[in-house]
Amino acid sequence: MTVGTGQRIRLTPDERRAQLLDLGVRLLADRSLDELSIDLLAEEAGISRGLLYHYFGNKHAFHEAVVRRAVDDLVAQTAPPGSGDALEQLAASMTAYVDYVVANHAGYVSLVKGAQGGNETLRAIYDEARGVLTDRIFTEDAQADLIPDTPATRLLVRGWAAMAEELVLSWVEEPNGVTRDELLRLLAGSLPALVVAAAPD
Amino acid sequence: MTVGTGQRIRLTPDERRAQLLDLGVRLLADRSLDELSIDLLAEEAGISRGLLYHYFGNKHAFHEAVVRRAVDDLVAQTAPPGSGDALEQLAASMTAYVDYVVANHAGYVSLVKGAQGGNETLRAIYDEARGVLTDRIFTEDAQADLIPDTPATRLLVRGWAAMAEELVLSWVEEPNGVTRDELLRLLAGSLPALVVAAAPD
Repeated sequence: MTVGTGQRIRLTPDERRAQLLDLGVRLLADRSLDELSIDLLAEEAGISRGLLYHYFGNKHAFHEAVVRRAVDDLVAQTAPPGSGDALEQLAASMTAYVDYVVANHAGYVSLVKGAQGGNETLRAIYDEARGVLTDRIFTEDAQADLIPDTPATRLLVRGWAAMAEELVLSWVEEPNGVTRDELLRLLAGSLPALVVAAAPD
Repeated sequence: MTVGTGQRIRLTPDERRAQLLDLGVRLLADRSLDELSIDLLAEEAGISRGLLYHYFGNKHAFHEAVVRRAVDDLVAQTAPPGSGDALEQLAASMTAYVDYVVANHAGYVSLVKGAQGGNETLRAIYDEARGVLTDRIFTEDAQADLIPDTPATRLLVRGWAAMAEELVLSWVEEPNGVTRDELLRLLAGSLPALVVAAAPD
């Protein structure tokens, strides 16, 4: 790979691998996993297919690595900012989630469908990410003020995460006049409302 | 097919087909669609495979017919009772939904996974059922008092339906000490709470 000046930069194998994964994630933004081939990555990276097989082993392992990287990005980008009260942090996190799905729509849909459709590797990565995203609600100090940690609220947050995913994917596909602000209100306002509704009398 | 007395009853082809579909749905209660073969149905019904092919054409068409029947049952069983106020009707409907998923767990999971995983036939049946179940919220007179019909509330109800599905399937798989009453409270209480949270200031 070359930089703007035309000079080659010597990267460590790990750096080169990370760079290739970043490229894979960018390519996944507007195509499904099925459409992301080793050939395409080789062409976009300007390196040989053989070298890619050297880095990733096979297509399956390549896809797994790209999806793991994409999911790591999702988790990192939607991390609560660490300042502000619980509701502000939740709103910031949900805003980042909407931005992520908008920017990476095809790949995200592909991950969700693949995971739900019985691809065991995708399922494991997806479940792990879902677990991190929902557990975070309970472990971040700020959110703990918002939601007591009980089996019922754990279940509720799982359901809420499924709702958030459905809301964002439906909205991106067909906004039907619903504005981004309205969507964000639904996303961030829903969790506190659900917690109140679920509380024992 | 025989009745208890051993006497054969002459059924019309439509009645016989309906009877076979009912049997298919019952078999689907505790096995996935992949496990529901023409052979199994033939054995359980005590008739020949050839006759089943006569009624259903092929395995794919057979599966489609069984799933349609199962989904029709779901829609019928979860119909609001038509008496009581909006919240009571919603609670009755959600109770019936939980009972349906508990009684037909394997088949329901199989439908959801198949639909989300890219089986186009299952996807179409699933989407249609989801549409009926959520549109009902807006067309039933009683519910109209509960929820104004706007693009934002239509989106919200889609999200809520995804949440309800996740809640029930997660709970059936691993209740974690959450009681059926707590689950029902989450299901029926969530929609009104969400509507309030989503309302413009």
